[in-house]
Amino acid sequence: MSTPLSPLLAPMLSSAAMRAVCDDATTLQYMLDFEAALARAEAAVGVIPASAALPITNACRAESFDLATLADAATRSGNLAIPLIKALTSDVAKVDAEAARYVHWGATSQDVIDTGAMLGLRAGIDALLTDIDRAIAGFAGLARQHRHTPVVARTWLQHALPMPFALKLAEYAAALQRSRARLKRLRGETLALQFGGAAGTLAALGDKGLAVAEKLAEELQLPLPDAPWHTHRDRIAEAASVLAIIAGTCGKIARDVSLMMQTDVGEAFEPSGEGRGGSSTMPHKRNPVAAASALAAATMAPNLAATIFAAQVQDHERSAGPWHAEWPTLPTLLLVTSGGLAAIVDIAEGLEVDAARMRQNLDATDGLIMAEAVTMALAEKIGKSDAHHLIEAASKKAVKEKKHLRDVLTADLKITAQLGVDEIAKLFEPMAYQGASQALIDRLLASLDQG
Amino acid sequence: MSTPLSPLLAPMLSSAAMRAVCDDATTLQYMLDFEAALARAEAAVGVIPASAALPITNACRAESFDLATLADAATRSGNLAIPLIKALTSDVAKVDAEAARYVHWGATSQDVIDTGAMLGLRAGIDALLTDIDRAIAGFAGLARQHRHTPVVARTWLQHALPMPFALKLAEYAAALQRSRARLKRLRGETLALQFGGAAGTLAALGDKGLAVAEKLAEELQLPLPDAPWHTHRDRIAEAASVLAIIAGTCGKIARDVSLMMQTDVGEAFEPSGEGRGGSSTMPHKRNPVAAASALAAATMAPNLAATIFAAQVQDHERSAGPWHAEWPTLPTLLLVTSGGLAAIVDIAEGLEVDAARMRQNLDATDGLIMAEAVTMALAEKIGKSDAHHLIEAASKKAVKEKKHLRDVLTADLKITAQLGVDEIAKLFEPMAYQGASQALIDRLLASLDQG
Amino acid sequence: MSTPLSPLLAPMLSSAAMRAVCDDATTLQYMLDFEAALARAEAAVGVIPASAALPITNACRAESFDLATLADAATRSGNLAIPLIKALTSDVAKVDAEAARYVHWGATSQDVIDTGAMLGLRAGIDALLTDIDRAIAGFAGLARQHRHTPVVARTWLQHALPMPFALKLAEYAAALQRSRARLKRLRGETLALQFGGAAGTLAALGDKGLAVAEKLAEELQLPLPDAPWHTHRDRIAEAASVLAIIAGTCGKIARDVSLMMQTDVGEAFEPSGEGRGGSSTMPHKRNPVAAASALAAATMAPNLAATIFAAQVQDHERSAGPWHAEWPTLPTLLLVTSGGLAAIVDIAEGLEVDAARMRQNLDATDGLIMAEAVTMALAEKIGKSDAHHLIEAASKKAVKEKKHLRDVLTADLKITAQLGVDEIAKLFEPMAYQGASQALIDRLLASLDQG
Amino acid sequence: MSTPLSPLLAPMLSSAAMRAVCDDATTLQYMLDFEAALARAEAAVGVIPASAALPITNACRAESFDLATLADAATRSGNLAIPLIKALTSDVAKVDAEAARYVHWGATSQDVIDTGAMLGLRAGIDALLTDIDRAIAGFAGLARQHRHTPVVARTWLQHALPMPFALKLAEYAAALQRSRARLKRLRGETLALQFGGAAGTLAALGDKGLAVAEKLAEELQLPLPDAPWHTHRDRIAEAASVLAIIAGTCGKIARDVSLMMQTDVGEAFEPSGEGRGGSSTMPHKRNPVAAASALAAATMAPNLAATIFAAQVQDHERSAGPWHAEWPTLPTLLLVTSGGLAAIVDIAEGLEVDAARMRQNLDATDGLIMAEAVTMALAEKIGKSDAHHLIEAASKKAVKEKKHLRDVLTADLKITAQLGVDEIAKLFEPMAYQGASQALIDRLLASLDQG
Repeated sequence: MSTPLSPLLAPMLSSAAMRAVCDDATTLQYMLDFEAALARAEAAVGVIPASAALPITNACRAESFDLATLADAATRSGNLAIPLIKALTSDVAKVDAEAARYVHWGATSQDVIDTGAMLGLRAGIDALLTDIDRAIAGFAGLARQHRHTPVVARTWLQHALPMPFALKLAEYAAALQRSRARLKRLRGETLALQFGGAAGTLAALGDKGLAVAEKLAEELQLPLPDAPWHTHRDRIAEAASVLAIIAGTCGKIARDVSLMMQTDVGEAFEPSGEGRGGSSTMPHKRNPVAAASALAAATMAPNLAATIFAAQVQDHERSAGPWHAEWPTLPTLLLVTSGGLAAIVDIAEGLEVDAARMRQNLDATDGLIMAEAVTMALAEKIGKSDAHHLIEAASKKAVKEKKHLRDVLTADLKITAQLGVDEIAKLFEPMAYQGASQALIDRLLASLDQG
Repeated sequence: MSTPLSPLLAPMLSSAAMRAVCDDATTLQYMLDFEAALARAEAAVGVIPASAALPITNACRAESFDLATLADAATRSGNLAIPLIKALTSDVAKVDAEAARYVHWGATSQDVIDTGAMLGLRAGIDALLTDIDRAIAGFAGLARQHRHTPVVARTWLQHALPMPFALKLAEYAAALQRSRARLKRLRGETLALQFGGAAGTLAALGDKGLAVAEKLAEELQLPLPDAPWHTHRDRIAEAASVLAIIAGTCGKIARDVSLMMQTDVGEAFEPSGEGRGGSSTMPHKRNPVAAASALAAATMAPNLAATIFAAQVQDHERSAGPWHAEWPTLPTLLLVTSGGLAAIVDIAEGLEVDAARMRQNLDATDGLIMAEAVTMALAEKIGKSDAHHLIEAASKKAVKEKKHLRDVLTADLKITAQLGVDEIAKLFEPMAYQGASQALIDRLLASLDQG
Repeated sequence: MSTPLSPLLAPMLSSAAMRAVCDDATTLQYMLDFEAALARAEAAVGVIPASAALPITNACRAESFDLATLADAATRSGNLAIPLIKALTSDVAKVDAEAARYVHWGATSQDVIDTGAMLGLRAGIDALLTDIDRAIAGFAGLARQHRHTPVVARTWLQHALPMPFALKLAEYAAALQRSRARLKRLRGETLALQFGGAAGTLAALGDKGLAVAEKLAEELQLPLPDAPWHTHRDRIAEAASVLAIIAGTCGKIARDVSLMMQTDVGEAFEPSGEGRGGSSTMPHKRNPVAAASALAAATMAPNLAATIFAAQVQDHERSAGPWHAEWPTLPTLLLVTSGGLAAIVDIAEGLEVDAARMRQNLDATDGLIMAEAVTMALAEKIGKSDAHHLIEAASKKAVKEKKHLRDVLTADLKITAQLGVDEIAKLFEPMAYQGASQALIDRLLASLDQG
Repeated sequence: MSTPLSPLLAPMLSSAAMRAVCDDATTLQYMLDFEAALARAEAAVGVIPASAALPITNACRAESFDLATLADAATRSGNLAIPLIKALTSDVAKVDAEAARYVHWGATSQDVIDTGAMLGLRAGIDALLTDIDRAIAGFAGLARQHRHTPVVARTWLQHALPMPFALKLAEYAAALQRSRARLKRLRGETLALQFGGAAGTLAALGDKGLAVAEKLAEELQLPLPDAPWHTHRDRIAEAASVLAIIAGTCGKIARDVSLMMQTDVGEAFEPSGEGRGGSSTMPHKRNPVAAASALAAATMAPNLAATIFAAQVQDHERSAGPWHAEWPTLPTLLLVTSGGLAAIVDIAEGLEVDAARMRQNLDATDGLIMAEAVTMALAEKIGKSDAHHLIEAASKKAVKEKKHLRDVLTADLKITAQLGVDEIAKLFEPMAYQGASQALIDRLLASLDQG
């Protein structure tokens, strides 16, 4: 495989399916698919002889071409299409000299390259959809499983309140589901055939340009745009942004997991496996290796997307430079996004949860994490203001005397005058104070069934 | 006005409407709008006393607060919401001590700040929609006007073929129209209320959290999401990407215009005006000042969007750092996008076109730009291959002898045997070789009527 | 103050000193300083009448100009220099009509704006140097204080080995010191006068251009470059990169601190203070508010620097667009870098260290963190391989039986045959296994004395 | 070759020399060079048996290892070093079981990977230095050749004033020379050995850590830093910024060349060559293919550098994610920078200059480009103000009547009263108004001799 991630790093940072999509041979094949479909479309419309379509189609097989020779020739022509078409024409000519005259008829390099890129994007989107479905299903399953597992909610990396772990997991699933919808929309609405000829006017096809375009779009199963979009790259930019958003969501999940895996926290873990994330000299270590891949993707993707955005400034009818910048960048973005997502699939399908440690961590602040819960309960009896002052004082006392807040409260007559000891104990049950969590989880899980 | 573009530069790089949206006082007002709506929603649902809603609502006026004091206090609290709510509570207390207890009831800082950001985004989108409509209408009008004005199509900055100027203009309009649809989708589907309380569980509202959320969303006319999205920033990232795409399209148009304005090209010009883009010492100069603003925006926007993408990696239930990075970045992105778009409105509504110079430039290559047209015509008589060889030879001769290709062809018996002198002359009429251009223009203009 | 961070956010994300540098009035003053110095230089060289220098110099006071009027006029001229010079000329004319003729003599807008930017950069560098010195001194002091305080070294967020906390602190100081050297180099070598006239040839000054340039550089105390560098922005890009590097180092330190402040770790804390980072409803919380500012800066700075890098592509002798993109971006980068650094000063000067908790966390893995130390000691007796196997087995036993590794070892005859109980106990003293740490600390601290 | 640019695109976007540096096998070899040098250093210092050094050194040959197996294993370990060392140990063991025990003794994965990256950077810098020297020499030669060739200086893409083409060329050379100095400084001062062991304390080496480090640095000819810099990435960030600055300078030059190559300008051209940049259907086209590569690099490099900057935020003693993000990004940045620079070498060594067209373009504004020159000359006789008014009026007349300004002036008695016809004619000689250009060229060329 030859992709814009070198083989030594590619497995760690991309999915195998995406490597197949972004492989040089596949890239070439998509360009050849355009040429073959063009010949068939033009034969169907009567622009070229019907007899030319088959020999051209037959010759459009990536394995017939020498990549190194093409790549070298591209340094002189400024793009891959020119040498490819030359070689293709020569191949066809060996079989059918007449047909060879009609190779690439009326098209321009950018038509081949951009449509090829669209076919690659489509395959890339499909690869991501497969993985995103797995990740969503994984987190949804975990959410159902940990519906009532309490965990510390952390804000600013501080213990804030308890929450059901399922809420966190359902949010992961729902965020991925939103990006799934983005991918679907991209695939169905944003991708588009590129076909405009030398200057985007289809001039070489006389009055048959649009008919050929329609047929060609049909052949390739790509939406037909209103017109060629050579130097209007908003479709490409939109695709890049969806990829960067996915990478970001994967990064967010990975950050959470890497934080939960801390030796100091130990609440949830990437799946273990032979030789995985371990350290022979440090047996207690459990490195977040999947999370690292996702976080690497989330570090790279924003800037890869920025390159695509910056490359929108393309002059007149074909640009020299920005267009070229897209070529390695878009597949790299596909690859790292796939790598981030694959890591998240791994996590979603194999997360090991230590509910006991979660519970233990909830107690790390000696009950202070439940102070708000107690305050709210007390407020119902004596009003918010008084309740706040009483609990604030009790909390300070608990901290100062290194006691559990529950014990301080139970020993406080002003409190026990309002709340019984059993009642107080119940207030320290984390899941007694989860507000709308269960309803929110229902809503989030329900959102996964759409589309 | 106090925005994330300093007053000295803001007018050059943003629209007045967007500066009003991103002004500090407006930002504060959006936060206060949340607090007022929250009070009303909670009163309606019965979470707080009905009598608390009005005093709180009345106090929620940005002009009552001292921005400098709030900004200073925010350095200690880490966000603006904490001092704002403190000040608001104190203001309400002056009027109604009881009501003051219910300020911000059950909400958290992030609820105020994120929902405020959403209200700002909505207003920003509306400001952009106004301008994008003007730009689309301007280019559509120009396209209708220059339906048959031939201009050089340039690829790699080289003369390629003729095209009707309208095709270029209709592409501008259609690209903006695609982003108009993106803005509409953002506004209708992507924006969402943020309301989750301290940890996203709405715990402090007991079993009334969702009811309040529904009412609050209704009050603010914001879509109610399935759950709070505190640390899932894909909505923000999607908004940022739409802005960067618009800035990119504006940059593309601006690049074209700045290139057409070159002294060496002189085909189209930004509107002139008193003191505009001129140079007293160099009277022939006509600086592309609007294009410069749009190109500046297109240089900045990709990286501002990258910051928003990077800031997606937010840990657990509230992040320290990435969230803060959004605060100045998102409004800056709104501002520069508005500036780029305003520059394009200026161009779309006032472009001065020198059709004569366009025609003259088409002749700059002594007819070579029509070589393909002649080849295609000749090919119909003698086949593509022979036609290609004949015209290639004639072109070389024209270059070598510095003659017009038409004259070389007219003097060539092999050519005149196939094509009459009048026929040859007609082939050199640029608009005789425009392929599907008129149909493409129709399609593009028709696309503008959607949505 | 009017800077490219709006007043509402600026205090949280920048230093007061840098806000003064980046204030609009200061920006204007630097441009006026150029004009005043130019007049004096030209008078000294005899290019303009000696009598013109004083009236011009006297008029060059920012407070005389109306910023809003200038900003508005700049939208037509495409830069601020043109309206400023017009207004300045008019002001001078009120006092001395003859002198007014010589305002801005032979210079161009870019000379004023770029040299103004250089003066701003120099002042910005000075502001950063003051803070970086404080941060270095703070961390150096902490390093001396915690020379022998053991703390867990964490790799991949896992407990790895013990290290003296001083090593971490000395690394912070040394990293900042390397950037201090970068700032010094920038100030001394990279900044440069911009003075080239309309096209960079100083044509309007005849044969006196260089003499004026020399005098002008002397007046402004800026290095005289070999030639104007109008569209060669490598100096600006180098400055931006130094700022982004500093922001990154501050982000690294802030990340560490925010992680150490976790409720789950609790080893070190930002200084507390009235209302600082606390939460009234959650008394146990201690939010990393300074760290958040530094992390926000580290999220924004890379992309602000990317804009400056991207803006290097400036065409011919003056660019339209990329140059403009620098204007708000460079001061924003200065500001957020100052904010990140100010946060780090705050931390360096007030870090609260909980050495007891550090010690306690070292024990969290029941001695496993010392497994390597024990292995190395045992290896000296029985070889690396056997030692490794014995300790690996003991470690697994300790994990399985939830015992301290020390106790497992002490109960193992194969171990006690080689190491006495006291010896074993000593091996579990964290600082017994710190390798070259003390020497490294010495080297790092020594590096702070350079430059 | 396997690099982070896929083989199909790599030749167009990188230099062959840099592809050799960034090839996977080379990357592996640098890691093995570390292991070999470590063994020799530790043997020399007496940490491992002297007899272990040779067998380890002998086994450290990249060709012995299966890249695909290593890459696959790295997905489980989270980095390449772990499987590499395992495989290396196994290879050594086949020859010398005792020596195998001492492979990688006391080191950590990051030591291998980071030092390997430093060796790669050094080789990359050397590759760039070779090319930058060629580019500097090329432009210097062109500058000497075109010392007196006048060309239009263009600001805002408008004709501004004449300048000697040499000034432009010498600025190119000098900008590259400044980056040459940056590369030299990087190589000599910024690169540094990474060697810290598991936690950066060199604990496993007891009291011999520093001695080994010194010897190791000597073996690898890398500067010895004051301490390991595992999570302080400022060195890497500084290297990235130098690369991005070079790519930017190459982009600036490429933009100029692509603009000069415009059919509408035609002043200078990339070297032609067989099949180079041409178009068979459009014989007049001369595509800027080298410039396109450089502009692509300049579009990508800023964001690749931004990734490196963003990756500075690495937690504690080893980071999971940001570090990984550097791995593909830094070599990609090296590659595209090499591609941009190679394109500029191509231009510097083969630029075809059409001095006649330059001269012709200078006349395109019918003398208006010399208006300032005439004004200055006239000002010496009648004062700046009157001169300005007279020439402004004449310029307007020239534009209105489509006459050459010279002819308008020669026909104007108010002018001819001050300046003779011959004198006027001379003022329209472009090089009569070049100010300090020749001195500036001297200074710039002299700067090339430094360092």
